[in-house]
Amino acid sequence: MTTTFSYSGRFSKDSVETAVAHPTHAKYDFGTAYPPPETAPLNELVEGLIKGLKREGQDLVYYPDSNGNLALREFTAKKLEVDRGFKVDPEDVFICAGSGEANYGLILALTDPGCTVVTERFVYSGTLGQLRNAGCNVVGSPIDDAGLIPEALDELFTSLTAAGNKPRMLYTIPEHQNPTGTTLPTGRRRQIVDICHKHDIPILEDDCYVDLRFIGNAQESFRAIDQTGMVSHVASYSKLLLPGLRLGYFVASKEVRERAIGFRSSSAANHFTSLAVEGFLSEHLQEHKDNLNASLHAKRDAMVSSFGEHFGGTGAKLSEPEGGCYTWLEMPLGTDMTALRDKAFDAGVGYQAGSIFAPNNDGDNYARLCFGYESPEKNREGMALLAQILDDNGMLKAAD
Amino acid sequence: MTTTFSYSGRFSKDSVETAVAHPTHAKYDFGTAYPPPETAPLNELVEGLIKGLKREGQDLVYYPDSNGNLALREFTAKKLEVDRGFKVDPEDVFICAGSGEANYGLILALTDPGCTVVTERFVYSGTLGQLRNAGCNVVGSPIDDAGLIPEALDELFTSLTAAGNKPRMLYTIPEHQNPTGTTLPTGRRRQIVDICHKHDIPILEDDCYVDLRFIGNAQESFRAIDQTGMVSHVASYSKLLLPGLRLGYFVASKEVRERAIGFRSSSAANHFTSLAVEGFLSEHLQEHKDNLNASLHAKRDAMVSSFGEHFGGTGAKLSEPEGGCYTWLEMPLGTDMTALRDKAFDAGVGYQAGSIFAPNNDGDNYARLCFGYESPEKNREGMALLAQILDDNGMLKAAD
Repeated sequence: MTTTFSYSGRFSKDSVETAVAHPTHAKYDFGTAYPPPETAPLNELVEGLIKGLKREGQDLVYYPDSNGNLALREFTAKKLEVDRGFKVDPEDVFICAGSGEANYGLILALTDPGCTVVTERFVYSGTLGQLRNAGCNVVGSPIDDAGLIPEALDELFTSLTAAGNKPRMLYTIPEHQNPTGTTLPTGRRRQIVDICHKHDIPILEDDCYVDLRFIGNAQESFRAIDQTGMVSHVASYSKLLLPGLRLGYFVASKEVRERAIGFRSSSAANHFTSLAVEGFLSEHLQEHKDNLNASLHAKRDAMVSSFGEHFGGTGAKLSEPEGGCYTWLEMPLGTDMTALRDKAFDAGVGYQAGSIFAPNNDGDNYARLCFGYESPEKNREGMALLAQILDDNGMLKAAD
Repeated sequence: MTTTFSYSGRFSKDSVETAVAHPTHAKYDFGTAYPPPETAPLNELVEGLIKGLKREGQDLVYYPDSNGNLALREFTAKKLEVDRGFKVDPEDVFICAGSGEANYGLILALTDPGCTVVTERFVYSGTLGQLRNAGCNVVGSPIDDAGLIPEALDELFTSLTAAGNKPRMLYTIPEHQNPTGTTLPTGRRRQIVDICHKHDIPILEDDCYVDLRFIGNAQESFRAIDQTGMVSHVASYSKLLLPGLRLGYFVASKEVRERAIGFRSSSAANHFTSLAVEGFLSEHLQEHKDNLNASLHAKRDAMVSSFGEHFGGTGAKLSEPEGGCYTWLEMPLGTDMTALRDKAFDAGVGYQAGSIFAPNNDGDNYARLCFGYESPEKNREGMALLAQILDDNGMLKAAD
């Protein structure tokens, strides 16, 4: 007789059940922020890897430096100086398993359960989940088509502080904000830096979509505007290259970094993949960005034009971001995109309902539609099908 | 004027300062448990990667399954059945960034600060550090040349429980124990399974050195002996292949797994590297193990024979493990290998003092000497130099 060992009462008080996650894909997959598969530089990554292995392959027998492969840190430091306008010593770049690991460490280092953290009114669901896991009360600050509204943020900081809930941190995605796609103008960033200094609240700047821009130029990074150490800066190679590479990085003041890395569950970022990424990007960064962004531009345009055809006159609005890989759909108030989500998935269109990005769960009439994965043609077809699904469910009407 | 933003009073109560780690290397590097660099299958890993990329390279645009790449999980499940004698569904294999990440999640899931955990009298310093970070009181159980002594373990469990400190877990490395190199005989494992059932204490079996065996055969795994879910089984591809690949895995009951993975700071193991490892091992596992173990055997023999030449008649003892990549040096009581460590490093020989593996810091007259990294010739030279360093410091004497 095989009995089963009982774990009842044995688990850590801090532990929570976490199911294994298997991402799913609808026929028209607008659900997840994937980069374009057809621009995946697979052969070139192998060439980059071979180059790196020739130089330092035998070092793979070592346990890597805990801040990551030196060549990739040097490359990243140069990239930050050229692309984001601030200098950083490669020793102060910390390579992680994606920007998610970087954000999580910084959140755990700078918050305690029960504290308040401010974000944009809608915020990337992954980070929202991390903040909630850390026990933070997340408060969204008002936004418009250009992102955070500085005056409203100032007022929110004042009222929260007056109520005894002074925020421990502002978390923001200033470029191609996830999920809304907005880019915060440099002028507003400067105002927000002043506001954060006035209220004494540090900034966690998540810049992981900055490389995905097909119109115009990036705005100044918070980290470039403020050199006092108030800004921790996170970014990623997942979006520029491939999420399966699981490489991101952060730059923070030494004391912040040393607190953040204590929360990492692994000892170092993947050395093998770091060689491939550095080997590839050191030769092909601009060429790859051009390919990637040309693809994203065509895909966005296809989604936007199909939206115009199929949603015209219904009161629905779709954002037209200058970069990133998602648009933000606003349906008339009362349209429940949350309730429709699973039905739409089964009918062939995957999306994320606005409510999963809403600190206050008030986003039912919104949805994030990712345009990076499917072809332009499928983006057009998928938008037509989404309109059909909405109509079939009595949710698409001529505007008053 | 640039002021500096002050983080005083801002850090999480749970956070600790963690310095960036840069591994260092002595001229004769016996300090870290590296596999042999000359057997690193770099070209073959690239070939494995190319094979994997052809099959599923475009899937790198997806965020990976949180339990890891399916092909690698399937391979791992087959390997566990063939090599370790237990069946597991690939869905129940969980790929991590090295065995360290697996151990850390399981420790955090199954312990609370202030609780007691039992290990071998000497235990791998990395795990000891994880247990202490988790706030556990670590108690080492008596060992002999075959590892844990079942009767002594039974008594220790009884006395700790009587004192109100019932252990929450037994952590053990049964094959080529780190640092002592001993392998626990199957008979003792069966006894220990019974003892753990009697005391109602789960086992964390760390099997990460099992593939590194050049004499005899592996003993039965705890997980094969006990099918009740009492045993969580951790292993690694870091030692069989390369630490820089950062891939390990664990198998545990579903409820334990779902608690453990909540403590992971990253979302999934590296997909890119998983393709390379699966692609390589599915064709070359046995051939690579043969190469690796032939190298380790020659290197061990060189270290052991040089020890005989240079330490003969001094009362020093060196273990002669059947596998793994380290031996355990026991010097006469009173010899302070802890105090000598930095001096020896500067003089050319890197080792780890026994005290860093000792839950009760009582291992000053011991040292772990890793033989995997250097050539047989350098192992011989390094042992001669270590004897010289000891002698120069008045620490090598003819035994009474």
